Amino acid sequence: MSLTNASPLDAAQSAKSASHILATLSEADRNDALTAIHAGLTAARDEILAANAKDLDLARQAAADGKLSQSLVSRLDLGKPGKWEDMLKGILDVRDLEDPVGRVTLRTRLDEGLDLERVTCPIGVLLIIFEARPEVIANIAALAIKSGNAAILKGGKESTESFVAISRVISSALEKTAVPNGAIQLVTTRDVIPQLLALDKYIDLVIPRGSNELVRYIKDNTKIPVLGHADGLCSIYLDASADQSLAVDVIVDSKTNYPAACNSLETLLVQESALPTLLPPVATALATKGVELRCDPASKEALAGTPNLKIVDATEEDFNTEFLTLTLAVKTVSGPGEAIAHINSHGSHHTDVILTSNQQDAEKFMNAIDSAGVYHNASTRFADGTRYGFGTEVGISTNKIHSRGPVGLEGLMIYKYKIRGRGQVSATYGEGEGKKRYLHERLPL
Amino acid sequence: MSLTNASPLDAAQSAKSASHILATLSEADRNDALTAIHAGLTAARDEILAANAKDLDLARQAAADGKLSQSLVSRLDLGKPGKWEDMLKGILDVRDLEDPVGRVTLRTRLDEGLDLERVTCPIGVLLIIFEARPEVIANIAALAIKSGNAAILKGGKESTESFVAISRVISSALEKTAVPNGAIQLVTTRDVIPQLLALDKYIDLVIPRGSNELVRYIKDNTKIPVLGHADGLCSIYLDASADQSLAVDVIVDSKTNYPAACNSLETLLVQESALPTLLPPVATALATKGVELRCDPASKEALAGTPNLKIVDATEEDFNTEFLTLTLAVKTVSGPGEAIAHINSHGSHHTDVILTSNQQDAEKFMNAIDSAGVYHNASTRFADGTRYGFGTEVGISTNKIHSRGPVGLEGLMIYKYKIRGRGQVSATYGEGEGKKRYLHERLPL
Repeated sequence: MSLTNASPLDAAQSAKSASHILATLSEADRNDALTAIHAGLTAARDEILAANAKDLDLARQAAADGKLSQSLVSRLDLGKPGKWEDMLKGILDVRDLEDPVGRVTLRTRLDEGLDLERVTCPIGVLLIIFEARPEVIANIAALAIKSGNAAILKGGKESTESFVAISRVISSALEKTAVPNGAIQLVTTRDVIPQLLALDKYIDLVIPRGSNELVRYIKDNTKIPVLGHADGLCSIYLDASADQSLAVDVIVDSKTNYPAACNSLETLLVQESALPTLLPPVATALATKGVELRCDPASKEALAGTPNLKIVDATEEDFNTEFLTLTLAVKTVSGPGEAIAHINSHGSHHTDVILTSNQQDAEKFMNAIDSAGVYHNASTRFADGTRYGFGTEVGISTNKIHSRGPVGLEGLMIYKYKIRGRGQVSATYGEGEGKKRYLHERLPL
Repeated sequence: MSLTNASPLDAAQSAKSASHILATLSEADRNDALTAIHAGLTAARDEILAANAKDLDLARQAAADGKLSQSLVSRLDLGKPGKWEDMLKGILDVRDLEDPVGRVTLRTRLDEGLDLERVTCPIGVLLIIFEARPEVIANIAALAIKSGNAAILKGGKESTESFVAISRVISSALEKTAVPNGAIQLVTTRDVIPQLLALDKYIDLVIPRGSNELVRYIKDNTKIPVLGHADGLCSIYLDASADQSLAVDVIVDSKTNYPAACNSLETLLVQESALPTLLPPVATALATKGVELRCDPASKEALAGTPNLKIVDATEEDFNTEFLTLTLAVKTVSGPGEAIAHINSHGSHHTDVILTSNQQDAEKFMNAIDSAGVYHNASTRFADGTRYGFGTEVGISTNKIHSRGPVGLEGLMIYKYKIRGRGQVSATYGEGEGKKRYLHERLPL
């Protein structure tokens, strides 16, 4: 790992060169590097926490001056119970994942002695732009090395001391391994993000880890593919046939389990015929958790007799809003068809749910909704790499190509085609007289 | 199919709506539409060829005035022997491919009665921008419908009459099928490409089919992902251990089989120790086919005694040039390591080859070269979807995400995650006391 005062261009070029070496390393070489990083960080605990304390002092001062939020200060703190241990365990967890490099996903005999193979390989150079969490650097370094990708890391200025301390340790740990210097580059100079985002010749994928604003800024300012999502406007459609207690449980969990998360519920679509039956108990349960409802006229009227609710008249804008707080927009629809149309045009294609006891409607909904996650009778909050069993999560993508939904190590891979021949030439093959035909025989993987 | 005088925005919005319906159609519905298109075009042969004749008349006139190339006129001609029949056969070939929609690629039991499934689905809306070949419209309409994607087609103005005639027929054929109007939109108004390229809210993927200039223009002017390649600078590294006649065959085929193709050879890297042995017979064979060599000093000197060659001193620029003609840049390298470094920094990551009898060097080369195709002892010209056995080819991609190399129907697909539950909520699960653990049990596909 280099601590670059180098220019973004130098950092990107040297990351690219390193990526070409990384791509050829064995699984053992890459795993050994993660073991070395783990050992190095373990030994340097005190030194890193001391650096982190400096960041924290500055941040607390800034928070006291009203220049920084208290939640950001909290995210900075590597000394919080369990955080350091989780960071270290994460490195070994990544190391112990199945090797994503070199998996053969297609094998075709084109002709005798002319075999085609599709093999997974690293994408190349990742640019990771993240905000305050200093533990991300260890997590991302582990993911990058495991997947054979080089990474350029640009962190928020609030955690500079922590980043530099962690990366010094990673750097000297890597020196004794086969992973080349330059494979993990930490850029600490300020205001280089626009320059980095212009380096599409060297950087193959940008992964922003931070606020919606950060992601949106990056998506709007680069030609490099961006893996992530700016918005998480998740909806639930509540059908009149749904089981009442099931509906209450799923809606309450989706909305209140962690309202600031991208996989939290923002819009509830209620079938008209469910207004008198299912909506009141759902609304009561939500109110108990402190949820304010932004209701359309029909749903408001249906709740007129229910006590202790916080109800506000919904505006059109509420149905396009990711509240990220204990606020829920409620709209009445005639049935699944109208719900599908609403979600496809107002949602953010993240995760959407149908609550129904009608199996056929559920399958239709899941096929018709154009989102990364489509669930029947389950909480939106399951949209998460760890919950999906991916072992680790690079991010959640609402892109329509490459990776969609929670992205694990697989999202950092692409493939190449290898052909092993004996001097065959294309002119030999074809449809004409005297030409050979291709065999195109599928071989076992 | 709509023949839109509609605005690009209207076309894109209606394509998006249609894509949501298309995504829910059964395989039979989509295949029936292709059968109907085939029947419609078969019946309308004379009418379409008459329209094509009008395009041809104008084009021949323009060619006579020096405003259009003769090769473009030739590409326009649907009446050329076999072209019409190939176009029609292509539709049925696509219809008979395995259904790419709804393939389950991952199945995990998160808990009893809570199953996660990853299922292939269409990307959404494709924008296809192509130049003169009128048959592309039928080909692309077939690929789009088969894969459940909507498509907006923008063709070159030289073939407007042909496009309109073909799309009228497709349009009325589709009317009797389940494929919605708006699924295939032909935009015939001029100068709308910049407007279309700005509609990233509705269009999910751009596929340019045409010149390098067209592809480069599109890549430089949109935030929508582009599937394609602007350059095809393919290289061969000739190791001293290579078999002589094998080397001659592969290099001659790679360079001369179809010099204008993106998978043709542009740079030959020769191991220094092979200069006196292998280069002269290779150069002689190339000269017989009319190839001019742009040689570095060492390779030029090695060929000093070989008669009948066309040799020019190479400039640095020659090693960054896709000639697309019978010109080949020749450079001397010390061995595979230097060849790998040269190709990774000068190539276009399309297809590169090592000719060697050393198996270990070959494997190292194929792992280290950062290209879509990496071959051992085979011609660069095999880089082609048909030759790979993909049945049809959407294009060749040098992207580092989603699809790489020749792209078949798979490249038009993404996936979504479905969860089928019984009302489970996320708060139930976790590491703490009283919490359930996820099962994360892999289920058979």
